[in-house]
Amino acid sequence: MERRELVLETGRRRITDVTAHCRRFASEQGVDGLLHVFLPHATAGLALVETGAGSDDDLADHLDEWLPRDDRWRHRHGSPGHGADHVLPALLRPSLTLAVDGGDLVLGTWQSVVVVDTNVDNRERRLRLSFLAG
Amino acid sequence: MERRELVLETGRRRITDVTAHCRRFASEQGVDGLLHVFLPHATAGLALVETGAGSDDDLADHLDEWLPRDDRWRHRHGSPGHGADHVLPALLRPSLTLAVDGGDLVLGTWQSVVVVDTNVDNRERRLRLSFLAG
Amino acid sequence: MERRELVLETGRRRITDVTAHCRRFASEQGVDGLLHVFLPHATAGLALVETGAGSDDDLADHLDEWLPRDDRWRHRHGSPGHGADHVLPALLRPSLTLAVDGGDLVLGTWQSVVVVDTNVDNRERRLRLSFLAG
Repeated sequence: MERRELVLETGRRRITDVTAHCRRFASEQGVDGLLHVFLPHATAGLALVETGAGSDDDLADHLDEWLPRDDRWRHRHGSPGHGADHVLPALLRPSLTLAVDGGDLVLGTWQSVVVVDTNVDNRERRLRLSFLAG
Repeated sequence: MERRELVLETGRRRITDVTAHCRRFASEQGVDGLLHVFLPHATAGLALVETGAGSDDDLADHLDEWLPRDDRWRHRHGSPGHGADHVLPALLRPSLTLAVDGGDLVLGTWQSVVVVDTNVDNRERRLRLSFLAG
Repeated sequence: MERRELVLETGRRRITDVTAHCRRFASEQGVDGLLHVFLPHATAGLALVETGAGSDDDLADHLDEWLPRDDRWRHRHGSPGHGADHVLPALLRPSLTLAVDGGDLVLGTWQSVVVVDTNVDNRERRLRLSFLAG
């Protein structure tokens, strides 16, 4: 299994497109296999969505509906509402598997791999890529 | 890695059971491995649910609660509320991995693999299956 | 592919931490590969979340917001509101893939693998682990 760990400078962005990182790593393998994309974090998730036409911001905004940043959460470390960030990865799982054909990542035309991170106090996130050839 | 692409005639159905396609492809491999099920689309998702006792329709109906088809969405291409379809794959990820034992797809008695597609303007969807033996 | 099936005594717990089972199985393999974690059940799901600081209970409680246990559901077998349990696995998929480095399960410091089971009438659940070396 080939692996790589990248450090993402997410800054205060809630959505970070990592498709290019995934494509590059897959391309370097040059063969068929499965790519495993993973965030070793408890307050961030991954999604496969269209970017650039508003849907990435729609997703980030709508998370406040699914996970209101109020005082309902038992987890009370950090800033108010931060308990919501800890439930986020249950909904947007930080583990995603994709197919690779001869080094080409298999994605539809409008699909991008994005990191979703509502916990903007973290300015850096690690992204772990693994490739299992077959 | 073995692969297959199928074209599904989803018509106006919101839920399409693709378990039989997955089983057949796994069976043709005849060995142990992982099956990767994938939709190369930005407005459809996959789910593992029981079908036939109402839960598939419950899921499709309840998506209107999670993703209301109103004017809240930035993404404004297509018909009103279509922005919701673009957030759907964040919730119901279009990528799913399953185990295969000697060609037998490993599923519980009541589990089916379904395509969930609230964007009924698309009458066809592509389903990509990949098999990594091991 | 190596495999193992475990029987979990979930009792009336809604959240059951299975990280130790996953780590032990990965450790026994001792090599690189992908671990596939799977529940062969139609009313339970998996999540990767922090445990022990309230977020596991936050998740279980918040499921009542996402999936109200009222009479909206078509699926009407079992106790009132049980239809919600059947939609749960669409949201918290019962299939999860993780990377393994030389027998070490790759997880962040605060990540645990948990079974989420709101259907407390089931006192036992099966957990199926598969390992594909590579």
